[in-house]
Amino acid sequence: MSSILLNCMGTVTDHSEYSEPEVPFKNPQIHVKNPHLDTMEEDILYHFNLGTKTHNLPEMFGDIKFVCVGGSANRMKSFAQFIHQELALPGNMDNITDICEGTDRYSMYKVGPVLSISHGMGVPSISIMLHELIKLLHHARCIDFTLFRIGTSGGVGLEPGTVVVTDKAVDCFFRAQFEQVVLGIVITRSTELDMGVSKELLQCSSELDGVPTVIGNTMCTSDFYEGQGWLDGALCSFSTEDKLEYLRKAYNTGVRNIEMESTVFAAMCRACAIKAAVVCVTLLSRFDGDQISTPHDVLVEYQQRPQVLVAHFIKKRLGLIA
Amino acid sequence: MSSILLNCMGTVTDHSEYSEPEVPFKNPQIHVKNPHLDTMEEDILYHFNLGTKTHNLPEMFGDIKFVCVGGSANRMKSFAQFIHQELALPGNMDNITDICEGTDRYSMYKVGPVLSISHGMGVPSISIMLHELIKLLHHARCIDFTLFRIGTSGGVGLEPGTVVVTDKAVDCFFRAQFEQVVLGIVITRSTELDMGVSKELLQCSSELDGVPTVIGNTMCTSDFYEGQGWLDGALCSFSTEDKLEYLRKAYNTGVRNIEMESTVFAAMCRACAIKAAVVCVTLLSRFDGDQISTPHDVLVEYQQRPQVLVAHFIKKRLGLIA
Repeated sequence: MSSILLNCMGTVTDHSEYSEPEVPFKNPQIHVKNPHLDTMEEDILYHFNLGTKTHNLPEMFGDIKFVCVGGSANRMKSFAQFIHQELALPGNMDNITDICEGTDRYSMYKVGPVLSISHGMGVPSISIMLHELIKLLHHARCIDFTLFRIGTSGGVGLEPGTVVVTDKAVDCFFRAQFEQVVLGIVITRSTELDMGVSKELLQCSSELDGVPTVIGNTMCTSDFYEGQGWLDGALCSFSTEDKLEYLRKAYNTGVRNIEMESTVFAAMCRACAIKAAVVCVTLLSRFDGDQISTPHDVLVEYQQRPQVLVAHFIKKRLGLIA
Repeated sequence: MSSILLNCMGTVTDHSEYSEPEVPFKNPQIHVKNPHLDTMEEDILYHFNLGTKTHNLPEMFGDIKFVCVGGSANRMKSFAQFIHQELALPGNMDNITDICEGTDRYSMYKVGPVLSISHGMGVPSISIMLHELIKLLHHARCIDFTLFRIGTSGGVGLEPGTVVVTDKAVDCFFRAQFEQVVLGIVITRSTELDMGVSKELLQCSSELDGVPTVIGNTMCTSDFYEGQGWLDGALCSFSTEDKLEYLRKAYNTGVRNIEMESTVFAAMCRACAIKAAVVCVTLLSRFDGDQISTPHDVLVEYQQRPQVLVAHFIKKRLGLIA
């Protein structure tokens, strides 16, 4: 790779493309792919306010088996409190401590074997978090864990409140790939997720009431308003019919929901051989309208559905339910 | 534009490109460019938890003359408290209220004629905020205001702590443009900023001690670790020499700092005819190393420099200093 970059440096502005070799999902070891890490005396996980010299990462995180990430800090705090209750763990969770409290970039909570972290909105924001999370799990020597993104999304041809477990994460051109720019060179990465985890989640949904779930493709855009065809942004140069035509095309390629993080999440998990799934609820049906005017309490209940589904998965894996 | 999109819908995956016509900087009216807004009974600014029916936006925001945005919610709260003190306004700012407290996506504080808002990390996150901010200022009928992004960045060939006022915001291929995907079609937008505001900021810096400031190009990447050539990510396929060569190329095209929001900020401000500037301090020199190990108090002082500079600009504009 290094030599390829060197060879390509002269044609940086030609947007040279290079596809990395496929890596099968491996277990149980996490595959950090950075030879420089071995030579570093200390690794400061800057956006977490954690480090290998200042914190005993294996002691703090070595027992992690499930990592759940989502956009909103409040939601990931609520999820930590919810999973504490679901796993019937001892202690009071009202004053649960944010492990990243020294920074406001991300929030992180640990509840038994479950880590809950916020990632903000969009590919760049989740990408920074994932780099530092993967290094954290590597330094902590975690093995045999599963990573979930639990989030919200716009639905395409689904009833609002439906949970979508992602089959393929696709970009705004409906391609199952993520283009990562490395030093001005475009690298194409696969966004294939682990189908075993997805099927297990679908089975879990069938054992629950009130968590309607489908497996479908998830489109990830780098922009909310113009990228997803919302008619109510500050800039909008397209008609309602343009929007509907784009959404119909998306639907016909298998897209069932739209959000802003799934492609890089899938690509980085695949590159590091991490078993992972994307589980997002649809807050509205994009074929019907754009303004999110659903009552607050209904939206809150919708947002709990991915949490309920993943909690059920975790309890089954831990043998707490049959 | 609508017809162009319609014509192009059949070739969505060909990445058709279309450059929008240039818009000169206008004053004082903000140019929201969305004909659908006029037909909407209510506009819910979802990620701010504000709306035209639930809030009297002209009364709440009509007197705004300066809008300052930055990544971190804590920093933008501190900035609000700092500007309150600098403008010698009455009242106690210890318990300043977050106007967006009903959501944790962004934080917003108003201090006299100054609005301070956080935007999270990366182009998608700031883009959502800007769409809703521009609509907010439009609904509030704000006129004659200036918009600043005050942030942090990596330096290229500068002493750490230097403030860079952005000349051109460039992408990772050193092009002064922003590619916006609209319904699967790539639209290229100019990232030209208002040079009058930038020169006024440079003049302000010469009147201050301890705020070393230069005007230079700012490179905006969609990724922190691999995109900016950090050697300490979870994935790193390049050598130290590859990294330095890329940074040298950037330097030779006029790049003096690297961050993750400036291109879309500049492009959207230009599209809506808003006078705006990007003012970021460099926390480290990327030619020297990657880990941010500078003492916390030094970093905090660095981060205050763009705030001090913009506060001086505001005080001069308000006639509080000569």
